[in-house]
Amino acid sequence: MNNFTFHNPTRLLFGKGMIEKLSTAIPMVHRIMITFGGGSVKQNGVYDQVIKALKDRDYIEFWGIEPNPTIETLREAIQIAKGKQVDFLLAVGGGSVIDGTKLISAGIQYDGDPWELVQKGYYYHTVPMGTVLTLPATGSEMNSGAVISRKETQEKFPFYSNFPVFSILDPETTFSLPPYQVACGIADTFVHVMEQYMTTTDQSRLMDHWAESILSTLVEIAPKIKEDPRNYDLMADFMLSATMGLNGFIAMGVTQDWATHMIGHELTALHGLTHGATLAIVFPGTLRTLRKQKEGKILQYGERVWGINSGTTEERVSQAIEKTEQFFQSLGLSTRLSQEKIGDTTITEIENRFNERNAAFGEAKNVTGSVAREILESCK
Amino acid sequence: MNNFTFHNPTRLLFGKGMIEKLSTAIPMVHRIMITFGGGSVKQNGVYDQVIKALKDRDYIEFWGIEPNPTIETLREAIQIAKGKQVDFLLAVGGGSVIDGTKLISAGIQYDGDPWELVQKGYYYHTVPMGTVLTLPATGSEMNSGAVISRKETQEKFPFYSNFPVFSILDPETTFSLPPYQVACGIADTFVHVMEQYMTTTDQSRLMDHWAESILSTLVEIAPKIKEDPRNYDLMADFMLSATMGLNGFIAMGVTQDWATHMIGHELTALHGLTHGATLAIVFPGTLRTLRKQKEGKILQYGERVWGINSGTTEERVSQAIEKTEQFFQSLGLSTRLSQEKIGDTTITEIENRFNERNAAFGEAKNVTGSVAREILESCK
Repeated sequence: MNNFTFHNPTRLLFGKGMIEKLSTAIPMVHRIMITFGGGSVKQNGVYDQVIKALKDRDYIEFWGIEPNPTIETLREAIQIAKGKQVDFLLAVGGGSVIDGTKLISAGIQYDGDPWELVQKGYYYHTVPMGTVLTLPATGSEMNSGAVISRKETQEKFPFYSNFPVFSILDPETTFSLPPYQVACGIADTFVHVMEQYMTTTDQSRLMDHWAESILSTLVEIAPKIKEDPRNYDLMADFMLSATMGLNGFIAMGVTQDWATHMIGHELTALHGLTHGATLAIVFPGTLRTLRKQKEGKILQYGERVWGINSGTTEERVSQAIEKTEQFFQSLGLSTRLSQEKIGDTTITEIENRFNERNAAFGEAKNVTGSVAREILESCK
Repeated sequence: MNNFTFHNPTRLLFGKGMIEKLSTAIPMVHRIMITFGGGSVKQNGVYDQVIKALKDRDYIEFWGIEPNPTIETLREAIQIAKGKQVDFLLAVGGGSVIDGTKLISAGIQYDGDPWELVQKGYYYHTVPMGTVLTLPATGSEMNSGAVISRKETQEKFPFYSNFPVFSILDPETTFSLPPYQVACGIADTFVHVMEQYMTTTDQSRLMDHWAESILSTLVEIAPKIKEDPRNYDLMADFMLSATMGLNGFIAMGVTQDWATHMIGHELTALHGLTHGATLAIVFPGTLRTLRKQKEGKILQYGERVWGINSGTTEERVSQAIEKTEQFFQSLGLSTRLSQEKIGDTTITEIENRFNERNAAFGEAKNVTGSVAREILESCK
């Protein structure tokens, strides 16, 4: 096991009706800015619950943080928040709203253009923030990361800052999600876990088992959720899995490999494809391309998650990769670039971008521009 | 899944050589009190590492926190700490030293006799504390609980306070532990997990899998540790399992059942038996006595942890309970009261104590004095 430091101070308030605890969860502050996405929370009752809980507090609303939140929108929010002396942020929405709000919380404390913070990659002078999660997927509600896009240059970069002080997760808020969003959320969670698991074997028995636990849970609940998307216990397990999938709990003492995410971010930046949907395409390609390097772990994964325990090594590895692609297909997601009408131009653009940045992603730092091309070629 | 709140702010510093980070981990304070047990840390090099790391800090040492820390000893420590204006505590040792230090950290901030705090059961006005763990077992390094004994009345009660701000876990500090301590630590961890798992089925798929992950890890590593107690990776997985077994991570949204612990505490209070050793005796008895109530979960446990998947329900339940007792035996621990020369007088005393306190422990609150007797009778 590798040395590690672990610290996750976010308080989780999980369950039915937990939104009513908002007012006590938010400390005494001057003014709260509540941030939202496009308005679905007005249809599903979440907005009403939030406003009712905060009726005696001083707050302003900021609407319109889009999927893959852009610096263009966030600059506006930061300007307003500064003008109104906002000293607490409450993100109400999915990972995009939460990610965007993380940048706002840093931007309020920064004098320059907030894009500079994204380019720097981190900034820890922030105003505190809490979240009300409505779409399980990114894990942003219990980690310190965000991903911020820039429309004018079609770029998308990770950014690190402080953890939310609390996050409220009520599975009932997910009941009205469109099936495609749920599918993308499951794929996103699955690949988050994989990026912390599909590395060198024998680093930690416990971390391996915990990662496999989330994968097996997703494999079990995904078809049931398709049949019964308003089942509280199913959505509770999905919500908990998504949060636990990217909050550090399965990453203690083990190496990680975020190459798939880095390629996926480019597909989103260039084509606007939903984050989880990009991963469902790229991740099987990463496994196909790096199957030799990851052979030991693919075998373990195949056996423990899919019950593959016969055949030659080659056959078992191939089966595990096929099972993974079929899982994403079973969610109703594309697993090939052609299904999303993405072709050679994009592959070349991503290779060039990786080369320009001297990219060398992944556990072995060997996912360069040409390897990214190889991965994408295998996803045609 | 039940509603829950989760918050665990302890920072873990895990791995080889992490003790050298002590000085930066402890904030700027007036005076540190370092608390120790009986002196084994002077033999294994831990004391030297701690003192070296704190050479430029103002500290005093308090020695002699015994296994099952007593209020008699802790009163002394509190008096000294108050006199010396101690405002940070560093516990260096196992669960007993850490538990005792939690009471010291509260006692410093309390004007009355600290036993009143134990009787109250909780107190959150504390000075901050950190830990250097040397014996994986209780999980106290990453939770807010403690258990405090009183010699003069042979009593032992749980006490809740604040989390350590940090805990340093270096698996190398465990290399010189006596095998019996390691065995008790493994049993303690196993039963901690069981007390959060062996309850109603179908509360959370993920929490079930995570609990089973720790159990399976312990079952896998226990015989290997016996053969190779200085194996870093084995001890790292043990240390991580012990911490994760009682820090809230496997308790989200599920019911718990601490009846075995409450009976075990009495055995320690009356006979001085090591905590983990009491659990190895009592826990199989709890399963035998409550086998009907816990049938569904025992079946699941038997199948997933021990691979028991044939036979009638009765046979499978019996096998799972036998496997559990055999596991404790394989650690070299007693699993029957007679092996520890504990007889009817003690059983009657525990029944009476439970009755006097109107005890009704366990998930179903049905472990009263007479059920405790039944459990203990089955452990003769």
